[in-house]
Amino acid sequence: MSSESKIALYETTGFPNPARVRAALAEKGSLSQVEFIEVDVMNLEHRTEAFYAINPLGTVPVLRTLEGEYLSESTAITEYIDAFFDGPSLTGTTPLERGMIHMMQRRAEAMVMDAVGTYFHHATKGLGPALETYQCSEWGNHQKQRALAGFSYFNQHLEHNLYVAADTFSMADITLFYGLAFAEFAGIDIPAELTNLIGWRQTMSERPCFSAS
Amino acid sequence: MSSESKIALYETTGFPNPARVRAALAEKGSLSQVEFIEVDVMNLEHRTEAFYAINPLGTVPVLRTLEGEYLSESTAITEYIDAFFDGPSLTGTTPLERGMIHMMQRRAEAMVMDAVGTYFHHATKGLGPALETYQCSEWGNHQKQRALAGFSYFNQHLEHNLYVAADTFSMADITLFYGLAFAEFAGIDIPAELTNLIGWRQTMSERPCFSAS
Repeated sequence: MSSESKIALYETTGFPNPARVRAALAEKGSLSQVEFIEVDVMNLEHRTEAFYAINPLGTVPVLRTLEGEYLSESTAITEYIDAFFDGPSLTGTTPLERGMIHMMQRRAEAMVMDAVGTYFHHATKGLGPALETYQCSEWGNHQKQRALAGFSYFNQHLEHNLYVAADTFSMADITLFYGLAFAEFAGIDIPAELTNLIGWRQTMSERPCFSAS
Repeated sequence: MSSESKIALYETTGFPNPARVRAALAEKGSLSQVEFIEVDVMNLEHRTEAFYAINPLGTVPVLRTLEGEYLSESTAITEYIDAFFDGPSLTGTTPLERGMIHMMQRRAEAMVMDAVGTYFHHATKGLGPALETYQCSEWGNHQKQRALAGFSYFNQHLEHNLYVAADTFSMADITLFYGLAFAEFAGIDIPAELTNLIGWRQTMSERPCFSAS
């Protein structure tokens, strides 16, 4: 059981969306202020009444806030973390930064993270028959093509940019980084000619929030 | 042509996502400070080189900011509007409000707006053969079921809440309101027993930002 007096993150080791929240906490220097609670997805713990009570959608990650509320959706959790903890901004400070970071974060999510996820869960064995109770392989394979188009889009964007959004490190970089990690796990390789994207990923992999979290 | 000295919204009349941005501007009392530019989607104007230059994804709405940058993705545009203009907050002021509003906005988007959109574009005639160049009807029909589950989720939530998130009107209400309008257009009826959701929609429809924008 967890202490109610501390922020808690319900996560599943190795899953890409919980990793986004860990990286946000690491970038803010706040890992030590959070309790981590493992959710055993492979044994369907996320489909129990106890877990549905904290997230009716049955997904990880979930953050229990200091106020005792439960937040899901990685972007929403990152908004809470960014406003709650000190440290460098991950979501922008000016109106333009906020707009650009949210735009690119959503593109990284839709064009890479979610496209890869749909391919993985619908056009491969995914997490196995006990968890993948409905699959639409045609749609899954279509999303693989969407992910590859996403790689090309970000490769072009990174030709003249060090970061995904607003000339600064942000949650948009975190989402793309773990979107590419998920793609590698799912067997979608980055084409060798996308050198900007591959170089950006290499640079990012040396950043402490990714290498240490 | 548009004046570069004013914020501009590229929109398509009658489409649900541009309507979200109009409602946000109306709620902030800022409609008069924005120029509106119609994009003729039915004649494929969104798939021209000129439009791809301002949004490589070819979607409406797009906001040209006062700084001359182009923002797409309705949530990102709303973040810019909310931070740029005075008026009531649409995205929250405390860490907890920000987290809750982003969580519920994302749920309204994924469980209603996007689910209805996928049904409409994949399992009906959608915008017609010139625009619907790829359809996956199995996935589209699956998303109709997801939208209906979304209706039930929000109906339950609204049993004890006046608003979708954080006890205050926010962008999450705007997204759900136009998600339901899109559902009606696409022929997905709200089941009559979902009285909380139907009552909330009726109350919202009388709010000036929806009735006047």
